[in-house]
Formats: sequence, C-alpha cells, structure tokens
Amino acid sequence: MSISKGKFISFEGIDGCGKSTQVKMLVNAMNNTERNTILVREPGGTIISEEIRQILLHRHISNISDRTEALLMTGSRAQLTYEVIMPKLINGQNVIADRFYDSTLAYQGGGRKLDLDWLIKLNHFATYDLEPDVTFLIDILPEEASKRKSKEGDRIERAGIELQTLVRDTYLELSIRFKERIVVIDGHDTIENIHSLIIEELKRKQIIQ
Amino acid sequence: MSISKGKFISFEGIDGCGKSTQVKMLVNAMNNTERNTILVREPGGTIISEEIRQILLHRHISNISDRTEALLMTGSRAQLTYEVIMPKLINGQNVIADRFYDSTLAYQGGGRKLDLDWLIKLNHFATYDLEPDVTFLIDILPEEASKRKSKEGDRIERAGIELQTLVRDTYLELSIRFKERIVVIDGHDTIENIHSLIIEELKRKQIIQ
Repeated sequence: MSISKGKFISFEGIDGCGKSTQVKMLVNAMNNTERNTILVREPGGTIISEEIRQILLHRHISNISDRTEALLMTGSRAQLTYEVIMPKLINGQNVIADRFYDSTLAYQGGGRKLDLDWLIKLNHFATYDLEPDVTFLIDILPEEASKRKSKEGDRIERAGIELQTLVRDTYLELSIRFKERIVVIDGHDTIENIHSLIIEELKRKQIIQ
Repeated sequence: MSISKGKFISFEGIDGCGKSTQVKMLVNAMNNTERNTILVREPGGTIISEEIRQILLHRHISNISDRTEALLMTGSRAQLTYEVIMPKLINGQNVIADRFYDSTLAYQGGGRKLDLDWLIKLNHFATYDLEPDVTFLIDILPEEASKRKSKEGDRIERAGIELQTLVRDTYLELSIRFKERIVVIDGHDTIENIHSLIIEELKRKQIIQ
C-alpha cells in the first residue's frame, strides 16, 4: 500500500532490548527542525486500543488462549492503523511505532508457535496492507535483556528467557525473509552509537535528509 | 472437528428476532430430565470475553473500524471456545450458544461488507475449527424485529433497519451455503410453535431423544 506522503518507521526487538529509548531519541531528532513526527506504541495508542491493552496486560489473566491473544493484538493494531497511522501519513506527518506488524509474528508465531503464514495474512487484514517503510530490529541476547529489566514486569515480560529466545530467533528469521524492510542493529552497542547508526541508515535510505 | 461427546447447538438471527427466548426455553427443556446443558452468549461468556464485550458495546465509541470489530468479535469467540465450549463438550455436556460463528459472517460480512470468505477463515482460526452440530436461524422481517425492540438499544442495535436487512439477506445466503447445518425457522410464528418446531427438528436429527 502506498497511500503515504509521510514516512512510517517501526522498531522491534525482545523486551528489554532498548528500543523504547531509541524510539524517543529518533522522534526528538526528527522533530528538531520541524515538528511533524509522532510516536505510537503497541498495544495501545487509541481509546479502544488502550482498552484492549488493559485486557492483554491483566496480571490475573493466566488462561488467555494463544489465538485470543493474536486476535486482540491485531484488533488493537487495526484500530491504531485506521484511526491514527493512516490519517497522519496521508496528512504528510511521519509516524514512528514502538512495535508493530513484526511483534505479532515474533511473539505469537515464534513464542506461541502459531502458524507464521497465517499470522502474516492476519496482519495484512489488520493493517489494511500498510507496511513500514523501514523497521529497525534492535537485537540483543535474552540474557542481557533480562539483566536490564525490572523484576516487576507485566505478564508477557515474566515469561522468561526461554520464550525470549524463541522470539529473538523468529525476529532474526523475519529479518532474512523481509530483508528489504528490516535493518538489524546490534543492541549491545552504546545508546549513542545505536542512535547514530539509525540516523545514518535513514539518510542512506533517503527517509530523512 | 469432532472432538465432542456433547452436542453443540447455536441460534442466529437479526436483533429482536426472538432467539434469546427460544434459547432459554430449549435449555430448560433439555435440562428437564438431566442437568447437562449450558447456555453461552456472544460476545461474552468468560472474564476476557466479557471485557471485550464491554469495548464493543460502549456507546461513546462511534469510530471503531470494521476490521477491529471483526477481530474483537472473533477474539471473544476464541476465548469462549477454548475456555468453555470445548472443555464442556469433551466432558459430555451439551452447549447452546446465543450467537456464534454465523453472527460474524452476517454482521461483519453482510452488514459491514467485509469479505465473506476471509471471515470464514478468521472464524475457523478463532473456533479451532469447531462448528455447531446444528444452527437455528430464527428469520423475521427487520420491520417486525424493529417493533419488538426497546428504544434503548446498544450501539449495534441502533444501526437501523437498513443494516438489519443486509444482515438478514446474508443469513439467508448462509442458510443455503451451509444447508446441512443451518435450519431456517419462521420467527413470525408463536413462541410455543417455534419451540415445538425446534424440538421436533432436534429429534429428527437425533440430537435429542
């Protein structure tokens, strides 16, 4: 789908990889000259999506089915895409997403073992076929991510290193399958170096000047 | 899928067709000799599904996207199927559903014009390929249903006769496509006559004795 006049950039990676820090730094950098870039995070970002987020993060819910989780995640994404991302892009603004499309593939596909090709179809439906212009995968070892995380994580974050390893492996698999779109960044580097690499890559791709 | 030892019966029809009355009468009749039949209603029926129902029925939400609605409906159904319907059926109990599978096809397919074949795939995913043994479609004219309804309907119920006509047409289309499963009942008949017809049909299909 190429309805967009603005640019659409997403960030992906396992919990604790440092992507939220990078998202904020990039939004600030891109808004430095002209305030035309917004940040969205998943799941959430609209009234409806935030309500869905609350269901997904409830600590007392231990028996949510893998398929329910996949449908709620993509339901939240459908609303965010329809209500925020598409209108902003059409309006010429840039959108930076802290998680999008690939999170479902990595967590529900890799982590929960749902069929990856089916999840890709589900994503296409939810996003009205919209894909990011570029996706940065901040790749770190699950053991390193675990050290960085607080002990009071939400339901997904508590699931442990074994799950995060499956998720990471799927992210790396996706980075090969969608190599035109996904750029892998070494998340063990310093925050400043990672930010510089991202800026460099966006210039090389002529997404920013 | 034929995991079930119990029988699974669903009721469908436009808002105000009288199916909820028939569902209650049938549950009572089937529990008359042996208390082994439960009732479920959609959207809802589990803690998670009820929370999803609250999002769908919020009166202040006017801008929910059609695709979000379809994903939330099927997400609610996935949880109900996984947490309640499948375990009960495996356990030898009968389940009667006030709306299931076909509601998404009729409302999101017919009403909101989403692709019917895609919605069928989405349903198969959400229901773990489980289908009702029999579905009763209580068919009435939208004008008649409208007279019966209270003026204080929820968001979906306010949508009017035009929508209900599209929904009814799709239900009738489905009753041809899935003629082995769907039995059409004239909802203009008396409550008692409709109930007798349903009992008769269930005996004929050897679902009850």
